[in-house]
Amino acid sequence: MDAYARLKEVNRRISALSQADGMLDWDAAVCLPRGGSGQRGEQRAALAGVIHSLSTDPRIGDDLAEAAAAGLGEWDLRNLGLMRRDYVKATALPAALVERQVSTASACEAVWRDARPHSDFTAVTPLLTELVALARERGEALGPALGLGTYDALMDDYQPGVTSSDVTAIFDSHRAFLSDFIPAVLERQASRGAPPTRVPASEAVQEETCRRLSERAGLDFQRARLDRSAHPFCSGTRDDVRITTRYDTEDMSCAVFGVLHETGHAIYEQDLPPEWAGQPVGASGGMGIHESQSLIVEMQAALSDGYLRWLAADLASCPGINLAAGADALISAWRRVEPGFIRVEADEVTYPAHVMLRFDLERALVSGDLSVRDLPGAWNDGMKGFLGIVPPDDRRGVLQDIHWYCNLFGYFPSYTLGAMAAAQMMSAARSQAPGIDGALATGSLLPLIGWLRQNVHAWGSFHGFDGLLEASTGSKLDPTYFQDHLRARYLD
Amino acid sequence: MDAYARLKEVNRRISALSQADGMLDWDAAVCLPRGGSGQRGEQRAALAGVIHSLSTDPRIGDDLAEAAAAGLGEWDLRNLGLMRRDYVKATALPAALVERQVSTASACEAVWRDARPHSDFTAVTPLLTELVALARERGEALGPALGLGTYDALMDDYQPGVTSSDVTAIFDSHRAFLSDFIPAVLERQASRGAPPTRVPASEAVQEETCRRLSERAGLDFQRARLDRSAHPFCSGTRDDVRITTRYDTEDMSCAVFGVLHETGHAIYEQDLPPEWAGQPVGASGGMGIHESQSLIVEMQAALSDGYLRWLAADLASCPGINLAAGADALISAWRRVEPGFIRVEADEVTYPAHVMLRFDLERALVSGDLSVRDLPGAWNDGMKGFLGIVPPDDRRGVLQDIHWYCNLFGYFPSYTLGAMAAAQMMSAARSQAPGIDGALATGSLLPLIGWLRQNVHAWGSFHGFDGLLEASTGSKLDPTYFQDHLRARYLD
Repeated sequence: MDAYARLKEVNRRISALSQADGMLDWDAAVCLPRGGSGQRGEQRAALAGVIHSLSTDPRIGDDLAEAAAAGLGEWDLRNLGLMRRDYVKATALPAALVERQVSTASACEAVWRDARPHSDFTAVTPLLTELVALARERGEALGPALGLGTYDALMDDYQPGVTSSDVTAIFDSHRAFLSDFIPAVLERQASRGAPPTRVPASEAVQEETCRRLSERAGLDFQRARLDRSAHPFCSGTRDDVRITTRYDTEDMSCAVFGVLHETGHAIYEQDLPPEWAGQPVGASGGMGIHESQSLIVEMQAALSDGYLRWLAADLASCPGINLAAGADALISAWRRVEPGFIRVEADEVTYPAHVMLRFDLERALVSGDLSVRDLPGAWNDGMKGFLGIVPPDDRRGVLQDIHWYCNLFGYFPSYTLGAMAAAQMMSAARSQAPGIDGALATGSLLPLIGWLRQNVHAWGSFHGFDGLLEASTGSKLDPTYFQDHLRARYLD
Repeated sequence: MDAYARLKEVNRRISALSQADGMLDWDAAVCLPRGGSGQRGEQRAALAGVIHSLSTDPRIGDDLAEAAAAGLGEWDLRNLGLMRRDYVKATALPAALVERQVSTASACEAVWRDARPHSDFTAVTPLLTELVALARERGEALGPALGLGTYDALMDDYQPGVTSSDVTAIFDSHRAFLSDFIPAVLERQASRGAPPTRVPASEAVQEETCRRLSERAGLDFQRARLDRSAHPFCSGTRDDVRITTRYDTEDMSCAVFGVLHETGHAIYEQDLPPEWAGQPVGASGGMGIHESQSLIVEMQAALSDGYLRWLAADLASCPGINLAAGADALISAWRRVEPGFIRVEADEVTYPAHVMLRFDLERALVSGDLSVRDLPGAWNDGMKGFLGIVPPDDRRGVLQDIHWYCNLFGYFPSYTLGAMAAAQMMSAARSQAPGIDGALATGSLLPLIGWLRQNVHAWGSFHGFDGLLEASTGSKLDPTYFQDHLRARYLD
């Protein structure tokens, strides 16, 4: 076996172990009994230690030095380049730090699950403080190896190739856009005066409906599951993708659009190039790209005029769903813009404000400019500044999202990068594949998914973030597509 | 850190990774989408490789040579002895064999799940043939290191310290006992002529009832789960034990006694000594002992006169359960003895016949005296010989149990060793803790569980199989306790 073949073999092994760890993480959110979190933390820490040890094996360094680029095709060359980068990152991190991050995150997440419903931020303060310190340590270890600042090195775990200065520039322009846009949308909406419309249904009916809509959107349930968790997410791998949601029996809209969102993530995973499974180049293009795939399904496709009209009719014909309102009222409700406390319930107009707040706060936490003790106050001040509202308690404030409590620092910008990329891709898809809107009006996403499969999914991480956008849409990320989309949907 | 402390540390790590693997196994039986079995096989093979590599690290050999017995207490001494044995076993096995066993088992189990309902034995023939060859290879590698024969070396994975000649002697005497006993019981039963009585209930009612009975028997659901699977089992760890069952809406008896059986396993795991968690001495005393704990709950306690009478009254008062029969008819039905095709549905009288058949067949498979091709025929001949009946198809014959198809060779004897040990322990418990039967008559297992906790559970694997029986009951395994129990229950 030559050096590159050995590298591919060790990557397959590392990927399989990472998948195993992903399953333990899924299980912790969906199945794990309360008492099991301590043991789960030990299991995941041991696994992280093993993965880190395999990833930093000096034989990888030798093989990377020996691996000849000559004769390799462009996918293998990109794969080899990503292997080099992974090795640089892994060897920059002390094993003890990796294991401590995992075990502390596991403990903190367990405390957070109890603390959130009681708005008990002080319960999580000690472990969150430790997680912030460990994240800083991680960023300081990775930064010099990658030529990045401390926070940018953390972002690199989620969307490589995008830095906080890129994000700051984009967010500054979008913040300026929103400062006029939100009031304009609210004013227009008030003039129409449509009351909020809810769609009550039992959990069983919601689950069945969500599964059906997800399958119709293109998810293959021979290789997927739908479960329940406190915080909806998508995890798993190509042949075993798992999405979760939560059900509000007063209104099924949240579950329906939430499941369609996770369906976008899940189809992306199912479509990744099978011949590169277990290799860095076969993985997704990063969390910004991943979010673009969930948001193109949820916000671009499912919230389109055609799909919403079809959905209103479809739900009206479902046994167990009692639609009091007509299609127009439903569509107004589903597209209602309203500054609110909860990110995962936010509309696409105000959503970026939630992300910008978190981006500002987590940079300040990592730099040390903000202490964990002062975080709830800073959160509430930020909400006032961004959206003009202050959460009445930490449950609906700083405790709402799992991310920081399970060690995801640097992830949040991906949501808005994804929303912007999704608008840009939708624009390109519409011009290249003209049947998309006609199909949406019949509840079918197939032409859109077909375009995504060919232009996004099949590419794994062959391209970087902007590279993939250039290849699929002709230009790197350009927030004006998203802003045009918002204007067209909410002001025209 | 001294050598022994280092050994304890590496054992904690290996234990955590084995727990992770156990979770992947549970998930494969309870959650995994059909398409995911290939990837799951890769994950488990990678994990097995990592565990094997950690377990054979030459530094363990150095530390075992260096570890000083002087100054160690008796638990640490036993722990060190078990570590030595684990190292001898691990180093006797080539890594490639370990990984191939795991990946082949994973593939074979997936094929079996589809083949069983269709009685399609030829579908599993190739992979089962491979698994038998790999098991033989394993036994041949382990045997010389342990000073055991090939099949005995496989048995050692499940109940160390008991050999096939021990089992043969016990089974021969029990087979002779059964040849008179089964006809006597059947004759007596026929003279009473009680018709079979079934207890129909919805799956939801059954699940709620099973959970309640399990909790009442002593299982702590803060550290446990109850789920559904094709083949009931118990897995997991001290703080996260998972039991499964299946529901037959025509008759809840199977689920009720099945769940009480798994509850016995699960309480044992929850009660293992926490201060020795992650160490060999803190693990269970082997699968024979484990089965004794499930069977003492199911067969000794739950099928006792007192508990059955309480149970009949309890179910009669449950909403959603329609008891057509009175307590006497129910008890006759629950204790009905009937030679049948399915091991897991067998009564305690005929159950050992199922085990003896499998013990004979798997020894013949491993020795090469029986080919996989000839297995279905040998199965049917054996059923004729042991119980006088021949299964009408392989679904109710050779395909019924998961064991061989997931690489469990050498496990089956544990069931009957456990049944016999349970009778022996129950006899000792009754004489040492007199409140047991009075409590059973009120549906409480607490005095029995208290005795088990103190005399069995708390001892982990400090004793060997016979050692634990001697310490808890005063003598090593003696099948006459079981035979006396059967006579008293079915002939007196």
